[in-house]
Amino acid sequence: MILVDGHRQREVDVADRAFSYGDGLFETIAIAGARPCLWDAHMRRLSTGCVRLGLPLPPFELIRAEAESLIAGVEEGVLKLVWSAGRGSRGYARRGCVPTRVLSLSPLPDYPRQWWSEGVVVRWCDLRLASQPRLAGIKHLNRLEQVLARAEWDDPDIAEGLLRDQNDHLIEGTMSNVFVLGDGELVTPALDGAGVAGVMAARVAELAAAMGLRTRTSTVTPAAVDMAEALFLTNSVIGIWPVRRLEDRVFAPSRLVRELQLRLQQEGDAPRWL
Amino acid sequence: MILVDGHRQREVDVADRAFSYGDGLFETIAIAGARPCLWDAHMRRLSTGCVRLGLPLPPFELIRAEAESLIAGVEEGVLKLVWSAGRGSRGYARRGCVPTRVLSLSPLPDYPRQWWSEGVVVRWCDLRLASQPRLAGIKHLNRLEQVLARAEWDDPDIAEGLLRDQNDHLIEGTMSNVFVLGDGELVTPALDGAGVAGVMAARVAELAAAMGLRTRTSTVTPAAVDMAEALFLTNSVIGIWPVRRLEDRVFAPSRLVRELQLRLQQEGDAPRWL
Repeated sequence: MILVDGHRQREVDVADRAFSYGDGLFETIAIAGARPCLWDAHMRRLSTGCVRLGLPLPPFELIRAEAESLIAGVEEGVLKLVWSAGRGSRGYARRGCVPTRVLSLSPLPDYPRQWWSEGVVVRWCDLRLASQPRLAGIKHLNRLEQVLARAEWDDPDIAEGLLRDQNDHLIEGTMSNVFVLGDGELVTPALDGAGVAGVMAARVAELAAAMGLRTRTSTVTPAAVDMAEALFLTNSVIGIWPVRRLEDRVFAPSRLVRELQLRLQQEGDAPRWL
Repeated sequence: MILVDGHRQREVDVADRAFSYGDGLFETIAIAGARPCLWDAHMRRLSTGCVRLGLPLPPFELIRAEAESLIAGVEEGVLKLVWSAGRGSRGYARRGCVPTRVLSLSPLPDYPRQWWSEGVVVRWCDLRLASQPRLAGIKHLNRLEQVLARAEWDDPDIAEGLLRDQNDHLIEGTMSNVFVLGDGELVTPALDGAGVAGVMAARVAELAAAMGLRTRTSTVTPAAVDMAEALFLTNSVIGIWPVRRLEDRVFAPSRLVRELQLRLQQEGDAPRWL
């Protein structure tokens, strides 16, 4: 089910700047218990993206109403919102463009349940993310780096690939944020040059803080990852995946990561995967 | 006039990966004398892009036939070709996608004729291009850097903005390549980390070689630009624009640049702007 500017259709104009240049933003929002999870945080990140890209802010109440109409009667799923710069003439200048909004509802992906209970297998990607502070942190539509990185493997048993920047520092997964547990604290990579500031990552850091576990933002080397006590991945749809194995490094199950998963589920901020 | 996969329509599916992720390539081809200019070179660059992004090669003969049908009876114009990864499901993996091709024909832009005869005014952009060797040189659809750079000015008398990388080396204009004339040779920036390898730039380098003027690829500092004898911009639609002024630096008209413009026009490789 798809709504384009409020209409039930599944087409956009070829002159839309999202199609021409990836000129826009998106949010991927989990539906759980028949309601969108972490809505306000998603709208805040979208707003930050609008300011960074110089796009008008979206009509939040209208989008919420349209989202509710799509979700009606749906217990679980994934709601994707695209906020594009809209239809324009040829050329990079946005002259009098009116943004396009696209809401689409999909079923939850069918990942194996043991990816939550036992953890996932992940790999290092070869592609190194470029550093572009003007685009770092926001969820924009220029995603060729993620597409190229995801194309590096097709083994269905590998759940995610980890991305480094050109200084070989860990940044994120192709579709997730990464947390490293060690020395009684969580460390998550600094995202000022590359990466997406995850809505779920921020929520998980809050839940960890409530458990007395602080989250520090820092550069993270592959050596630090190797020495970690535990590693886990977050995004809005999966919530938390513990990492069971990264290349040859096997991680023992972590009581703390399990506790975070359960708290997240209790809060209703992610689908009930466990 | 627009053809999407050969059909006269102007819509694409919202699940098209060009719309979702900028997952695809494009070419902007000038029409002059009722025929597409530098067709083979455009198709070669598109092929290079396909190899780099892991996309299937397009059906060249079919695209040529579709282009001819759009161009029929049109003396001058701009033909844009988008080769998108095509419609896909959610997620960065391209599973069984079939590419989408979009051909669209527009009139030539209405730039003032003195931009060719007297030269253009250009500025330095603040945005620094990221270095991503995996995407450098090809004409892909992730163009947010160019969009942000083009949004830095709205003075219609400024024709173009020059972009540097994060080492402050000149790379290109937002929509053009840059040549620097000095010491009896042309220098054009190395594009192994960022930038688009222009089809027109390659053609102009050939024409310069035929005039006994060699083109060297090198890193180019702003200081080198400042000390240049002349500066000019190229792209497939404009051909060659001499630079008359860059910020406060005024360049005297160059006989060599004028000669290159005339040769390019004689060859029929660009619209007749002069």
